[in-house]
Order: sequence, then structure tokens, then C-alpha cells
Amino acid sequence: MNNEIVAKALNTIRFISADGVQVANSGHPGLPMGAAAMAYTIWMRQMKFNPADTEWFDRDRFVLSGGHGSMLLYSLLYLTGSGLEKEDLSNFRQWGSLTPGHPEWGHTKGVETTTGPLGQGFATAVGMAIAEAHLAAEFNRPGFNVVDHYTYVITTDGDLMEGITSEAASLAGHLQLEKLIVLYDSNRISIEGSTDITFTENVGMRFQAYGWHVGEVEDGDDVEAINRAIEVAKQSHKPSLIICHTTIGQGLPTKAGKASIHGSPAGWEELNKAKELVNWPTEPLFYSEDSVLAHFREAAKRGKTRQSEWEKLIREYQAKYPDLSQELERRMRAELPENWQEALPEFAADQKGIATRVASGKTINAFAAAIPELMGGSADLAPSNNTWIDAEPAFSTATPNGRNIHFGVREMSMAAITNGMAVHGGVIPFCATFLVFSDYLRGALRVAALSRMRSIFVLTHDSIAVGEDGPTHEPVETVMSLRLIPNLVVIRPADANETAQAWSFALQNINNPTALILTRQNVPIFDRSKFAPASDLFKGAYVFYETDPSHSDLMLIATGSELSLAVGAIERLETSGIKLRIVSFPSWEIFAEQSQEYQNSVFPASIARRISIEAGVTTGWQKWVGEHGITIGIDRFGASAPGNILMEKFGFTVDNVVEQALKLTEKK
Amino acid sequence: MNNEIVAKALNTIRFISADGVQVANSGHPGLPMGAAAMAYTIWMRQMKFNPADTEWFDRDRFVLSGGHGSMLLYSLLYLTGSGLEKEDLSNFRQWGSLTPGHPEWGHTKGVETTTGPLGQGFATAVGMAIAEAHLAAEFNRPGFNVVDHYTYVITTDGDLMEGITSEAASLAGHLQLEKLIVLYDSNRISIEGSTDITFTENVGMRFQAYGWHVGEVEDGDDVEAINRAIEVAKQSHKPSLIICHTTIGQGLPTKAGKASIHGSPAGWEELNKAKELVNWPTEPLFYSEDSVLAHFREAAKRGKTRQSEWEKLIREYQAKYPDLSQELERRMRAELPENWQEALPEFAADQKGIATRVASGKTINAFAAAIPELMGGSADLAPSNNTWIDAEPAFSTATPNGRNIHFGVREMSMAAITNGMAVHGGVIPFCATFLVFSDYLRGALRVAALSRMRSIFVLTHDSIAVGEDGPTHEPVETVMSLRLIPNLVVIRPADANETAQAWSFALQNINNPTALILTRQNVPIFDRSKFAPASDLFKGAYVFYETDPSHSDLMLIATGSELSLAVGAIERLETSGIKLRIVSFPSWEIFAEQSQEYQNSVFPASIARRISIEAGVTTGWQKWVGEHGITIGIDRFGASAPGNILMEKFGFTVDNVVEQALKLTEKK
Repeated sequence: MNNEIVAKALNTIRFISADGVQVANSGHPGLPMGAAAMAYTIWMRQMKFNPADTEWFDRDRFVLSGGHGSMLLYSLLYLTGSGLEKEDLSNFRQWGSLTPGHPEWGHTKGVETTTGPLGQGFATAVGMAIAEAHLAAEFNRPGFNVVDHYTYVITTDGDLMEGITSEAASLAGHLQLEKLIVLYDSNRISIEGSTDITFTENVGMRFQAYGWHVGEVEDGDDVEAINRAIEVAKQSHKPSLIICHTTIGQGLPTKAGKASIHGSPAGWEELNKAKELVNWPTEPLFYSEDSVLAHFREAAKRGKTRQSEWEKLIREYQAKYPDLSQELERRMRAELPENWQEALPEFAADQKGIATRVASGKTINAFAAAIPELMGGSADLAPSNNTWIDAEPAFSTATPNGRNIHFGVREMSMAAITNGMAVHGGVIPFCATFLVFSDYLRGALRVAALSRMRSIFVLTHDSIAVGEDGPTHEPVETVMSLRLIPNLVVIRPADANETAQAWSFALQNINNPTALILTRQNVPIFDRSKFAPASDLFKGAYVFYETDPSHSDLMLIATGSELSLAVGAIERLETSGIKLRIVSFPSWEIFAEQSQEYQNSVFPASIARRISIEAGVTTGWQKWVGEHGITIGIDRFGASAPGNILMEKFGFTVDNVVEQALKLTEKK
Repeated sequence: MNNEIVAKALNTIRFISADGVQVANSGHPGLPMGAAAMAYTIWMRQMKFNPADTEWFDRDRFVLSGGHGSMLLYSLLYLTGSGLEKEDLSNFRQWGSLTPGHPEWGHTKGVETTTGPLGQGFATAVGMAIAEAHLAAEFNRPGFNVVDHYTYVITTDGDLMEGITSEAASLAGHLQLEKLIVLYDSNRISIEGSTDITFTENVGMRFQAYGWHVGEVEDGDDVEAINRAIEVAKQSHKPSLIICHTTIGQGLPTKAGKASIHGSPAGWEELNKAKELVNWPTEPLFYSEDSVLAHFREAAKRGKTRQSEWEKLIREYQAKYPDLSQELERRMRAELPENWQEALPEFAADQKGIATRVASGKTINAFAAAIPELMGGSADLAPSNNTWIDAEPAFSTATPNGRNIHFGVREMSMAAITNGMAVHGGVIPFCATFLVFSDYLRGALRVAALSRMRSIFVLTHDSIAVGEDGPTHEPVETVMSLRLIPNLVVIRPADANETAQAWSFALQNINNPTALILTRQNVPIFDRSKFAPASDLFKGAYVFYETDPSHSDLMLIATGSELSLAVGAIERLETSGIKLRIVSFPSWEIFAEQSQEYQNSVFPASIARRISIEAGVTTGWQKWVGEHGITIGIDRFGASAPGNILMEKFGFTVDNVVEQALKLTEKK
């Protein structure tokens, strides 16, 4: 079993974690106490990392998928000297602290991704492993494994019940992501009790079915045994799941092994007794014996050495492969290539037009040629989402350099994997499905938004104009529901050129995720010599057209495919003597970032009569049309019929726009 | 192989399906042509159903999980005389038809659930099988298997890649739902190409790991072989997956086996050639030889006999078990028990109050005692969601009569399973998780809303007041995003008594799903002798308090926990000389159903100064507060700190309400 220093190190992790929860009087002590040995083995025996530089590109990644056990991660970040101080631990779960209830990427140095919603961590780690495998294929050369790191995960029973995990595991097995090593904290306890009540499947057999290597450690507290299992896993050419049998709340005299210790503090009495049982001082809190702290801090020396070795390798690589090296450095700095914007496609005016998904496909291909880090794919809808990069193979075991990902029909994990690629860095990832199925991936999209990850979501088939597939496939509530998510930039471009601009924006939107909302059906490509330039998309909303710059009787506000209805109404409204302004409003979020002065110039109080036109629910549009306004939208589910018939039946016609406009202008 | 009449029957299904797609010039011919034999075997060799009474309670259920193959189902509903006519087939995917692009429950007789979004059908079927097993345990007696039916599913590669399916399969295996028989249409084709590109796991092994019986049929066109496999499955005490190796677009000369035939018509030339190859008339369309149609219509005779036998059994059961029988009849009529409303709990006024989740728990228990068909559970959060029915065991293999379901950490499938129980009938199902994780189940919730299924969603921990768990666990956008979904009734009750009323509403809301939005934290129980009665919740919004019924200077509109902030502001505002009206607004959807007159009486134009108070995003509230109004809300993600601190930091205080009110009333 564990020698003295290791045993003390484990207890140090356990008690620091339990102290954090106890001081906060809130949190989850069970996981950190049970999984201390697993975490210790990864961090102290296996993981390549440098506490002094938690952003070192070639570090191994560590993901605590059971994010509720956050104190485990915070303990290690403190003990190894990776940025957290004792004070941060005692501020666990307090206002303004670096130690929130669940780990948040971008908030705390050394936290590789945001976890807590179960399954997200596991799936995100698959994205990290994909990024690593791809970059290794792109940049490594014989003798120069400049990209060469593992992704370690601690996962839980709860994670493994989630569908997102199943999806991600199936894909990881298919892709044979051999540098993904997952340790399963099998404590057989969930909130409602023993996992016997609902989770009795054979997890190891399931992962074998996915094509994983499966190891097992009978005593999940035995560092040597865990270490050996990881060594074996590293020999395998498959992703690895190592089932570690543990006891939740390990070390607690009466609460170990019980559901009650999952999500509540142990209580001072119980905790003190646990400390006494192993001759641990009950005071001070967050205690570590000097020798133990020194033991943990050896990680700094090891890390420094390993990073120096890598930097030496990089210098030799620079000499031998100057171009590759320069490219790798650019990727690591997350800078776009010079002159990438020259690749921006322009689409000639055309009344028949093309679908914005088609314009998106052309834009992806144009930018992909200029931006080698752009990669992604669809949840088995590439031909419909128009997301295939023509010049590239699929990312696969045979062609890991490929930039097209066949995600399979696995929406939620696709989004989390995309997040994982984004936070890994070195690539700019996108993923795609039908807009209506953004419901399936919303849990992962929310994580991207919360933590401001640079994921790009391509969501096509954006309204009832989808047509024959019917209401199961027709979003009505969906665009507005995405606008409600803070930090997410939603862009619904009106034509091909706005679509190209939207992609340009998304590629520069490095501190937030972007959702591109695209049509299935053709929409006109507007003649920009008659209308405002498409580059005004960068303002979120803009005056697309006006009869008379000095005065307007009426404002038509439209997004996406419905802008063409506003344009179609111009002639008849002007013939009726109405001076109108048309506002193209592709992105509420981008508009909110503009100056108040600009915002007022687009929506001046002087134009009180306003009509919004969007083939979606009307709730929310009141903000822009005001009390005297009219919202043209659809507040019910769609139907199955040809798309043009649905648009007509539900009032998305030039006739209806004209009628509503006449009604509104006569009324006042 | 198949004898002549069977071979002709299969071709009839194939060509009718392909004709439907071809006439619509839209749809998915590949699945119906490939899975014709699977469907034929289920419907003509195994399934207990009566075409003359598609609602017969003890019928076997059939779910086409790959809903895109809808023409397969429509063909069978026509051929067996279950309600569809040839004209319906030729109107496939047209406005107003009974044959929408994907099957819709409640829209077309004989369609057991809505499918299309992949995985939903499979998981919903698990819910049907749970309902059957539970009702069988409740009502069957020796010699009287009055509830005794199978649930058959045809599932696809796409379904099996989805996480929702994995979750549902794991639970079905755990529960040993032996009357669930799933035929897997393994054609190894997905939209992006061969499943080799992304789906190479061993599906059979995976299902064995879940505890399923797994069978295999090498030739998925061989009716006898499929039939034998189903007979074997029926001998197993586990749920069964039968892998049937098929060819997508079977029978087409050049397109069979190709991805291109998944989602596009074959083309007349290809289709006519296919018909010619088997000496089939190319005209008329939707052709069936008289003998073949007669063969299919024998289902009517068999069905009539089987239903008569069951009715005879029921009559004998009535004689022997009159009480049970009466109860079963009531359940089948979907009528609530007499006097159930007497169980409505009342909560005494109390300033400290209780969390609405706690009030919900008490209400569930009160109603559960009066309504034996009420059953449900949580995604491993029962102690937090307060959803456990104390007097009942868990639903399990040992106690299938139990009414508490341990769904496990499987949100999306939980919701779909709940839908399945709802459409099965005989039970009133609910399910629960944290509100923020409604993102995980949104795909299934949308199906419930679209098809107006009677599912009840209990969503607790409804704001930043969740506190320490932090932003990953704090909904801000979520309540509003649920309000955007048509047909879904969202109720956010303000106190314990509104919570009881909300449950009362939900139980009577039989034609729509309901979402109950509940607090984690305590909220006061209002003294209803001073304020309007909680039963006014049945109007959606109501005047909770007003200083002076003849005039108000200001309206405060609040939902849920924030109503107490409005109440807390009364004294200070009245002292400042402001006459105020407070509107409690628990449900936008219920309010929308009231008369225009009533709506105007609650929100009269005369009270222009309005403030909304809700701990969520403000988008949407402009509809109610108007141009001169103020929205108190939170348009960013939350943080990790004690809940009361967060509420204060983000402006959810009486002080802020008073300040905003003073500002607003001075302004005008």
C-alpha cells in the first residue's frame, strides 16, 4: 500500500477538501475524499504540467468531470503551487472568490474546463484529445513530437449515466483516441442512494463495446495500483477507462460510503473525528505538514524541467522546420493568419439568391483555405448544413490531419467536444446541426456561453420554411431562446453577403461563442449598391434602406429570410405615400455592444410606428417595436407542407407586411 | 424465404411508401423499403391491435423511432385499415393532411407517439413499457392479465448514436422491462455515408452490458427469421434488441444501400425500374393487389377477436374484482377520482415560510394519496426536488407497483419516458430535475409540447438564489426560454399555496404539458386574508394587492420568489404617497387563455408605470411593462456565493424595488 508520505499526501487532499466544504458550510466532500488517490496519482505520478505556467501549450490536460468535487481540484492547485492560495480555499463558494462551487474555465487558472452539469467534462475532454491528435498529426515530425500530451479525466457514476457521455465515448472509441485516459471513480453512490437502485449495467463491458481499453483497480486508494493501471493504459492504442473502486467520503468514521456525504458537509464533529483517527491536527484548517507540502511542490521542479525540455525541442524544431514552427507558434498565440480577411467571399446581387446555409458553406470553404486551424463538422447532417471542407479529408485514425469531423448523430456531445477543442487551443472549431436540434445540445452550448468559449455553432433550417419535414423539424421558439443566453452571440444573417460577414465576425469573436442561424431555403442576394453594405452586420443592426433620410413614418425591422419581405414591400408602401425605414437586425448581442448614440440612431424615438418581421415567436420583440408596434411572427408550432405554403399560411408574405404597415400608419 | 403473398405484401409496403415520397417529392424512402419486413412481421405476425379501435387500451404499442420513415407507418395504417385512406397517402407532407412529414401523436389515429427527433421514439417506448409493467402489477390477478401488452419499436442507426437512447436503454435493462422488444434496422447507412465513418461500436455487446437480450437476424428481409427472433425474445425476461441486417432502399436497382436514398425521393425512373424488376405495375400509384389488401385486412378480423376476448376477460374481472375493475375503468377513461380536490393542502400564513419545492413535495404527497395514478420521480435529485411519494416504494423489478421512479442521472430520457407514460395512459406521470438542467431534457419537453402530452415537469432551484453551487447551477435565461415554447404551461408560483394550486392546475391540464418552476430557498407564505386568494392562480395573473381599488400610480408585477419583494415594498411606497397595485403573475400561458376583458382588468392601460420583478433575463418582460416601464431582472450569468448575497448583489432587494418605484413615479 501507500508509503507514509503518500498516505499523508492523500489525507492532506482529503482534509483540505473537507475543510473547504465545512468552512463554506456548502459543497460536496464525498468525491474529493474518495478520489484523492486517483487525483494524486494523475497529478504526482503521471501528469506533465508546470505549476508556474498553467497555460503551457503541451501540458497534459486534467478534467474533473464530476465538477461538484471542485475542492479536490482546488486542493491540488493549491498544494502543487499552481496559483491558488490557502486564502482562496477558505473563500470556497464565496462572492468574488477564485473557488466557485463548480470549476469554471477562464475564472481560475489551471481549471481546464467548466464542469458541474454532469457529462460535460467527459465529453469536453474528448474534444481536447481530438485537438491534440489533430495538431500532433499536423505538426509532429520524426524526432519532434512537439505536440504530445495526454488528457486525463476523473469521471463519476453520475457522468456515466448521462447520454452525453455515452455519445462522446462511442466517438472516442471510434476515433481510437489513445491519449485519452479516464479514471472512473466507482463509488456506487448517487444522490438518491446506492447505484443499485438505477445503474446496474456493466460499464466496463459497455466501454469495451465502444472500442476502449478497460482497466480495473480493486482498491481505488492504492496509488501504486492506479499508477500501474495508467501505465498499462498508455500501452494501449485505444482510449482507456480505468475503473477504480472507491469509497465516497473515504476516511469519515460514520458517513463514508453513504449518499448523505455526496452533497453536504460532513459536520465538524464527524470531520474532527476523521482527523483524529489518523492523528491529524484538527487545527489549523487547510493543514499540510511541511514535508507533505514540499512533496507536492516538487511538481514545480519536475514541471519546469519538462517545459524546458520541450522548449529546447521547439528551438531545434524551429531550426529544422522554420515554416511549420512559425505556424505552430501562431496557432499557440491564437492569432489568425495575416490577410485571412482577403478570403472573404463576395456574392453578386441575385434576386433568386441562395440559401444562407449554402452561402455559409462557400464561406467556410473560402476561409478554411486561408485559416488552417478552422475545423469542424456536423451531427450527421453535413450535406444539409453545408459544413464540409472540400479540400480536406475527414479527421480519422487514418487521416488525423483531416479537418472534417463526422460527429455522428450525437448533438450534445458534439457541442461539448467543440468546446473542448476551443479551450484546448490551436484550432478554431465549429459544429453544426438543424436549428431545432439545438435543443439537444443546449446543455453544452450553455457551458460555452457561461465560460465564454470560442465555439461556433452552425444552425441551419431556421424556420417553418423548412416545410415538409413538419413541426418536429421547424424551429419557432428557438432563435429567441438562444438570444436569452448571456454571452452567446446569435447572428441570423439576411442574405449571402451578411452570411459571409457573420462568419468573419464569428472568427474574430474569440471571447464568446457564436451561433449562426441559417436558412434552408433560397433568399435573394441584395444589391448593395442600393442598400447599406453587408459589412454593417458588424454593428448588429443597421439602417438597410430608407425612403427619406430626413423622415420616416414607419420602421420595418427584420432578420434573416424575412428581410426580403420588408424589401418586397418598399414599392407598394412608397406608392401609398409612406416613407419607410428598413432595419436589418442580424444580431441583438452585437448591437448591444454599440454606443448608445449609434443605437439611438438606428431606433430613434421619432419613429414610433414599428413592425418586426421574424418567422419565430414574438415574445421579446416588444422591446424593439414598443407599445404602438406590431410583431409579425408565429406563436404556435409549424406544420408539414411545402415551405412556401407554410410561409403564406402563417402570414410571412409581402401582402401581409404591406397590410400591417397600412394598418399601423393609418391608425395614428 | 418469404412465400408469395408475403413477398407481395412487402413490395406493397415498399412501393406505397416510395410512391408517397415520390408524389410529395419530399421524404425518406430508404427506411420504409429496407425495414418493410421488420414492420410486416411485427404488425402481421405479432402485434395485438384492432384496426377498428386504435385506442383499445390493451393493444400492443408500436413506435417507429426513426420517424423520418413515416411512410412505412402510414402504409401500414392504410393497408390494415386502421384509419388512413389512399387519399391520405397521396397527400403526404401536404397542408392539412393526416400524413405529416414525421408521425405526430394526437394528429393521426394509430400513431402512438411523435417521432423524428432521433432517439425520442426509443426512449418514449421505454415509458410505455414502464406504464404497462406498473399497471399490470396494480391490476392483474391470477388468471386475469387484464393489462398485458408489448411495446414494439423499430429503431435505427441514428437513434442508437443518440445519448437519449443510451440512457433509456440502460434504465430499461435495469428495470428488466421484458415486454419491450426493439428491432434494430441495421442498414449501416447514415446521412454522411456508411456508419463506418463514425459508428463502429459493437451495439449488441453494448446492449448486453445494459442487461438486454440481444438477438440477430442476418437477413432482415426474412419474415420467418424475424418472427422466430421475436418469439425467442418473448421468452427472455429482459428487454430485447433484435439486430436486423437490412439494406436501405431495398429493391431499388441503383440506389439501394446508398446514403442518397435516405432522405430524398428515388426519382420516377428509378422507382419505375424497381417496380418493373418485380413485375409490379407502375400505375396506379399506391397499388395493392386485391389478395394482398385482403391479406392485410385480416388484421381487422384478428384484432376484433382479440379485443372481444379481452372484453370478455374484463367482464369476468368485473364480477370477481368489482373495485379493482372500477378503478381500472376510471384510469382507462383518464378521469380523476371523485373528490380528489379535497386533498388540496392549505398552508398557514408564515413570514419565514417554506421553499416552494417543499410545498410541492407536500402537495405531491397529499394528491398522491388521493390519486393513485400519480407517479414519477427525479433524475437522481429526489431529495432536492422533493418528489418522493413517502407511502410508496420505488418502481422496480421487485416492486413494479411502486410509484417512485429512480430515473438516474438521465434527464433527456427521463422526459421522454415521462411522455411515454403520458401517452400510454392509465397513469399521470411527472419528472423532476433542477431548472437549469431543463436544458438537458429540452428536446423531449418540446415533443411533449408539440403533441400536447400530459407530462408534468417539476423544475426546482429556479434562480440565482441557488447560491453556492454557482452559475453552472443557476438558471437565469431558463424560465423565459420555457415560456417561448408553444403549448407548454409554465407556472412559477409565489408561495406554498400558489404551489398547491399550481399542482391542482397541472393535474387538470390534460391537453398540455406543465412545467412547475420552484424555489430552492424559503419564501413567505402570504396571509390570504390580506391578499387575493391563491386560487386566483387559475387565472394566470391576478391583482394580489392594491392600495386603492379606484386608482393606482404604479404596478409591480412579480413571479415566484420575487413577489415577496413587491410585498416588502408596500409600506414604504405607501408612506411615500404612492398608490400601488401588485400583480402576481405565475403563468403567462394560463393568463393568455382568459377573456380579453379580464386581461385588461389586470393590466389596464390606465396604469402605465409598471415594474416587473423576476430573477431572470428581462427580455420578454417589455410586453408587460411597456415603454415607460422598468424591468428588474438579471441579464448575465450568476455567481457562486450564498443565495441571499447573490440576490442582494444583483438587485433583488426591497430597497431596489422601492428605489426603482420612486424613480419611475417621480419621472412622470
